[in-house]
Amino acid sequence: MKHKVYITGSNSTKFGEHYSKSASSLATQALLGSINNAEIKKESIQAAYFGSLVSGSNSQTSIGSTCIRECGLDIPITRIEAGNASGAAAFQQAYFGILSGQYECVAVVGVEKLSDYVKGGTIEKILGATIDYHWEFEMGATLTSLYAILTKAHMKEYNTTLEQLAAVPVKNHKNGVKNPLAQFRREISLDRFLKAKRIADPIGRFDPATHCDGASSIILSSSQFLAENPDITTKVPIIGLGHASDTVSLHHRDTLTSLKATRKAADQAFKMANIKAKDINVAEVHDSYPIGEILAIEDIGFFPKGEGGKATEDGLTSLGSEISINPSGGLKARGDPFGATGLAQIIEIVEQMKGEAGERQIADSNYGLTQNVSGTGALTYVSIFTREEVKK
Amino acid sequence: MKHKVYITGSNSTKFGEHYSKSASSLATQALLGSINNAEIKKESIQAAYFGSLVSGSNSQTSIGSTCIRECGLDIPITRIEAGNASGAAAFQQAYFGILSGQYECVAVVGVEKLSDYVKGGTIEKILGATIDYHWEFEMGATLTSLYAILTKAHMKEYNTTLEQLAAVPVKNHKNGVKNPLAQFRREISLDRFLKAKRIADPIGRFDPATHCDGASSIILSSSQFLAENPDITTKVPIIGLGHASDTVSLHHRDTLTSLKATRKAADQAFKMANIKAKDINVAEVHDSYPIGEILAIEDIGFFPKGEGGKATEDGLTSLGSEISINPSGGLKARGDPFGATGLAQIIEIVEQMKGEAGERQIADSNYGLTQNVSGTGALTYVSIFTREEVKK
Repeated sequence: MKHKVYITGSNSTKFGEHYSKSASSLATQALLGSINNAEIKKESIQAAYFGSLVSGSNSQTSIGSTCIRECGLDIPITRIEAGNASGAAAFQQAYFGILSGQYECVAVVGVEKLSDYVKGGTIEKILGATIDYHWEFEMGATLTSLYAILTKAHMKEYNTTLEQLAAVPVKNHKNGVKNPLAQFRREISLDRFLKAKRIADPIGRFDPATHCDGASSIILSSSQFLAENPDITTKVPIIGLGHASDTVSLHHRDTLTSLKATRKAADQAFKMANIKAKDINVAEVHDSYPIGEILAIEDIGFFPKGEGGKATEDGLTSLGSEISINPSGGLKARGDPFGATGLAQIIEIVEQMKGEAGERQIADSNYGLTQNVSGTGALTYVSIFTREEVKK
Repeated sequence: MKHKVYITGSNSTKFGEHYSKSASSLATQALLGSINNAEIKKESIQAAYFGSLVSGSNSQTSIGSTCIRECGLDIPITRIEAGNASGAAAFQQAYFGILSGQYECVAVVGVEKLSDYVKGGTIEKILGATIDYHWEFEMGATLTSLYAILTKAHMKEYNTTLEQLAAVPVKNHKNGVKNPLAQFRREISLDRFLKAKRIADPIGRFDPATHCDGASSIILSSSQFLAENPDITTKVPIIGLGHASDTVSLHHRDTLTSLKATRKAADQAFKMANIKAKDINVAEVHDSYPIGEILAIEDIGFFPKGEGGKATEDGLTSLGSEISINPSGGLKARGDPFGATGLAQIIEIVEQMKGEAGERQIADSNYGLTQNVSGTGALTYVSIFTREEVKK
């Protein structure tokens, strides 16, 4: 075994509206699915990490407690909350749990049941808590209006156009058609994006990702666990991790055209993985708004600053191009159940590394990356994955 | 350096009502205080872990984001939520962060601003989320009424008396007089506890710990960090950790007179520390209700099952006895700002190990233990500390 920690199982529910299911039952479905996918006995799992933004806000805290009982597990659980990036945060802590020697095999579960909160402005308040609640949300700003500011700043500084911005969700919806677990499996034309009513100029009605229901789960195993369980043949090594913070509020930042936390987290992850941005040919990034994906591909280093919009419009990030961005359909087409999103991103890369991404498969993908963001960039997590045997 | 991870700094705000301060400013006060106490440059801190139950429920998620900016820090933060045990949960994840080799020096902060939620039944709903929200809270049970069931079960099975139960808070208030940071620095007579109105029979009006405001912070350092910083002379080794779960709901449990999660977490911690319960002579346990302390001292193994009440009444857990339980005054006299409580317990043991507990100092305390519980025992964390040089 060349690496320390591997992903050895994964599963997601379909993302969308699950009115008849609780958050806990969605989590249970994903967790049991990932155990089944890993082909291990459930007794092998020593601990579980849960990522969720909303858990506790209106009902159950420590969301995993009810889920593990439903799964018939009797293990310690830890809930991590990192706003919209709660899934990636739980993943990274689970990784540390294994690396510390405390555990050999752990489950990570991300879950959200957002259809409970769409009415009465509750979802806006929940998202208001991911930006500066007192100095942004209570003063009238929403997450969408702050992303509008980020979008305008980029348009002004780099002449990024509405067409370039709309090219992001056009591409992602095209990819989402090929993803059986995506909420929206249909294309949306560039024209429809451009003609849509503006909800916070320049952001149009179809631009933001939807807040939906869903759960995702992955199983992490140490190299020692794999040595003791030689039957487990499908495994994806984790080779780079980065986690950085920025100020919650936009008004404390030096720039509005770059996310510092993404740059720092990517630098950490590339350093740990000992590779460079050009070595990556598939990535899942946080496209909750079109500008999110453009900032991500520039700040991670896939394209020079200011050229992300043009690159997207020119098809340089489309499926099968030199760097395929959001082959799963991204948050935009897959849907965004906050806590589950970070893990769904990882699962897409895991399937790409295993060569099991079906119609979305990128040939010869040796290295894949995920980027999960909270708020307008207050927290960013970057993770890098590879194959056990890298192809030359 | 004989151990892997040490506590090298700590600080708490006073616990009580802080109407003029936000959760973030309380956290900032404690975090800066702990950096000052550790006598390190703040730039030495590589990451911060925040424990909070309420963060995000009604305002800011990822509570640490605003705090670190106020502290002038630019480091990754992680928020852990584990109900009433969020402080201990954050502490244990920070420990893993160091043990994994990712960090050499990290801060842990626990914080709660509960005076914002005392009106309109909000606090009951917050606590309702720590029990089974759907099958207990929504059906009419509250945390207090479930603890009343636990109390009655113990009274019935072991003839535990109201006098024995009241001996717990009587002792803890006596200890709290000696703690400058406690919310209540006054004794309450046995008679007053016994004559108080019952709020959920057999629990009386003065029995539960109060839900208040406060923040606590500790600094953790690796042995490598200490080797590189020989000026740091005051350090307390962490030698045992345990973390276990039980069902959230009482109706799924095998017994109501013992908390399985406490037994399992204590077993893990004793095994890791390679000591036994009899080696401990000072402990901070979760006395949010009198039965909580009695269950704790039995389940950890300080006293045989069923004898915790009598032991307390007989003074066997009083300050300076063979095993001093809750020398700080416990949750009862110190006050219970959920996320801060688990760290305040650790800080009391740290001060005892350093010989800096003032009037509360226990002579020759070589080993100390903390136990932090969520809900009615859904999650329990046990941690064990020692001195760098154990006295014979």
